[in-house]
Amino acid sequence: MPPPANEPTPASIGALLSDVRARTPLVHSITNLVVTNSTANALLALGASPAMVEGVEEVAEFAAIAGALVINLGTMDAGRAQAMRLAADAARAAGTPWILDPVAVGVLSYRSQVAVELLAFSPAVVRGNASEIIALARQAGAVQGGAASGGRGVDSTAPAEAALDAAKALAAALRCVVVVSGATDYVTDGLRTIGVNNGHPMMSRVTGLGCTATALIGACLAVTPDTLTACVAGMVFTGLAGEMAAELAPGPGSLQGGLIDALYLMDADLVTRRAHLVAPDV
Amino acid sequence: MPPPANEPTPASIGALLSDVRARTPLVHSITNLVVTNSTANALLALGASPAMVEGVEEVAEFAAIAGALVINLGTMDAGRAQAMRLAADAARAAGTPWILDPVAVGVLSYRSQVAVELLAFSPAVVRGNASEIIALARQAGAVQGGAASGGRGVDSTAPAEAALDAAKALAAALRCVVVVSGATDYVTDGLRTIGVNNGHPMMSRVTGLGCTATALIGACLAVTPDTLTACVAGMVFTGLAGEMAAELAPGPGSLQGGLIDALYLMDADLVTRRAHLVAPDV
Amino acid sequence: MPPPANEPTPASIGALLSDVRARTPLVHSITNLVVTNSTANALLALGASPAMVEGVEEVAEFAAIAGALVINLGTMDAGRAQAMRLAADAARAAGTPWILDPVAVGVLSYRSQVAVELLAFSPAVVRGNASEIIALARQAGAVQGGAASGGRGVDSTAPAEAALDAAKALAAALRCVVVVSGATDYVTDGLRTIGVNNGHPMMSRVTGLGCTATALIGACLAVTPDTLTACVAGMVFTGLAGEMAAELAPGPGSLQGGLIDALYLMDADLVTRRAHLVAPDV
Repeated sequence: MPPPANEPTPASIGALLSDVRARTPLVHSITNLVVTNSTANALLALGASPAMVEGVEEVAEFAAIAGALVINLGTMDAGRAQAMRLAADAARAAGTPWILDPVAVGVLSYRSQVAVELLAFSPAVVRGNASEIIALARQAGAVQGGAASGGRGVDSTAPAEAALDAAKALAAALRCVVVVSGATDYVTDGLRTIGVNNGHPMMSRVTGLGCTATALIGACLAVTPDTLTACVAGMVFTGLAGEMAAELAPGPGSLQGGLIDALYLMDADLVTRRAHLVAPDV
Repeated sequence: MPPPANEPTPASIGALLSDVRARTPLVHSITNLVVTNSTANALLALGASPAMVEGVEEVAEFAAIAGALVINLGTMDAGRAQAMRLAADAARAAGTPWILDPVAVGVLSYRSQVAVELLAFSPAVVRGNASEIIALARQAGAVQGGAASGGRGVDSTAPAEAALDAAKALAAALRCVVVVSGATDYVTDGLRTIGVNNGHPMMSRVTGLGCTATALIGACLAVTPDTLTACVAGMVFTGLAGEMAAELAPGPGSLQGGLIDALYLMDADLVTRRAHLVAPDV
Repeated sequence: MPPPANEPTPASIGALLSDVRARTPLVHSITNLVVTNSTANALLALGASPAMVEGVEEVAEFAAIAGALVINLGTMDAGRAQAMRLAADAARAAGTPWILDPVAVGVLSYRSQVAVELLAFSPAVVRGNASEIIALARQAGAVQGGAASGGRGVDSTAPAEAALDAAKALAAALRCVVVVSGATDYVTDGLRTIGVNNGHPMMSRVTGLGCTATALIGACLAVTPDTLTACVAGMVFTGLAGEMAAELAPGPGSLQGGLIDALYLMDADLVTRRAHLVAPDV
């Protein structure tokens, strides 16, 4: 039996890579100070055109002409929060799809509050680790009480599976797609949930590969209205690039550059053969 | 027939590399958040001593003691604009040569206005892609009307050749040297124009190599009063390093590190043999 | 005769690496814009959990829960200075050990003043090059007059040995440990002084490896109350990783990634065999 319409498949994800390469979408990124360079290089290697425009004087103008907007809370202060509000507002007004990466939400009070504010601007996607998604779902009122979310710095203390209910509730409440990163990644719109089993354990020893995944989802959002497929594709591209790089890398220093090479070298055929989608057991 | 005095030659460019190594010039850089690390590493690999001093409290003090100043508009806000004004003003007062990289001017209104303001502080060099140079020449009143400059994010939508007239007019109006980057790079003081044919197509898939070229020109400005030769040298060093790295790199992740290795490994003899200068056809 | 209690030995430094891996300490870093990525990756490769939290709205909350705090003055302005004061104050109050890296103190007036202010918050460690330590000791009143400290940009103009007296005086005055980086690194608490002879000359051509050493000392401070051993360990890990990477790297671009690989690949046994501690001649 064929999958239902719009069900992401390895072939549709491979085709989406070709679309990104053909259209070189302009991806507006307001990301943290740690990953500006690696994020721009990942987007370039995939075939997109990144622009890191962050000043309050410029973000609204650029969000309106970009193909997609990426907002990442990794290094926050009041100035960056204001730039994010202005950009998200302009994106919503212009119909530019945007994705939120709530780094360390649940650990730090200020950014947790900013993240909830930003949800009012209707992100197409939220991507985080299990602790971040649990914390954000709670702060947004999508789920009630329960145990603490347990983030530790920028790392999750819970497996991705522990956040699946929170992810579905958050997706339903926001009418968006939520992605939980982990050994298996989960993508859900609240009704359908797809698992992605690409990736490699050494990836957790390179800073900001979650941020890279968020940015690559952004590139995909710019070329398709099918948000679920865009999210699955972004996770597959990142995980598969990590797998390919890990075959050659003695350590995380080599993995960082090798992952960029792999994004550049992968094509629709390779993605179709190696995308590893799974139906969640939960 | 020998070239006229001060005409850049492969041998004079090679000699300039040796001068940089011998004098390790202090290069003050106020650059964008994406390329701080790669710019510092490129300057170190070439043989210069980079310092990224950006605060309004510090830039004037440092610009006055540096050998050259690099100002790059890649990530702009009001605070950075003020630091750039103070630094450029101090550089002019102290006789420190400085170079402007007008990233995405013509695409974003705020930085376009800041760029024009900065021109009043007499840069020795302006280096950009074709769209940026066309836009800046127009904003500065050096050329009139004509078609839109057509920048798209940080990328040019025009070939370098399309910006040659604007570059010559801008150079003449500002009494500076203007560099237009592209498949062939052009360096002009308004009267003389030199083309540089070093480089590799994969370089466009690594973020910030235009910013690297700007910084390397800065290092050269610090060791010679011959601005035209300094500009040709910076473009040759960058393009040649890219060529050398591309011989070994499977993708842009490896190219980024390999280009730094190549800058470190090149010497006056190699530069003399491989610098590829051309007389423009236009 | 066995070394006195708490005297750092290759074996105790190797054991400390295992402790870092076992406890994955949370290292709060407020560092300069050039090295955010390389610092985070070095900490991850060693086995720590880095978090770059810099906003004035967030630093106090995070410094109180982190295992250690790293403050690096590489790119200063009033906003960052205030974040540093708040973080250092919260660290002192919470008993979080913290380390100061006074980049370019003695060259730039503003940061020299901020550095002296920060000393009031009782750092456990100060690490700098010879020019920085001489300048800071003078500014803090630990030593009097004498020749100028002679910093040039972010580089020292004096060998590490020239700063040994200043380092001992500063350590005694602040009741902290002072580390002077150089061809041989020196670690002193004012009474005892230990030299570290690991490292490779090519490391000076990669930006921010002093900042990396500071961050790795931070990771060690989070897992041991023995500050002297933590400092020696951080310098050994950095220098040894540089040695290992230099065996394979044709240039500094490869060295940067290779050093991260080496931090990931080293283990207690390797450290014990290759840590090169010396008794200072001076």
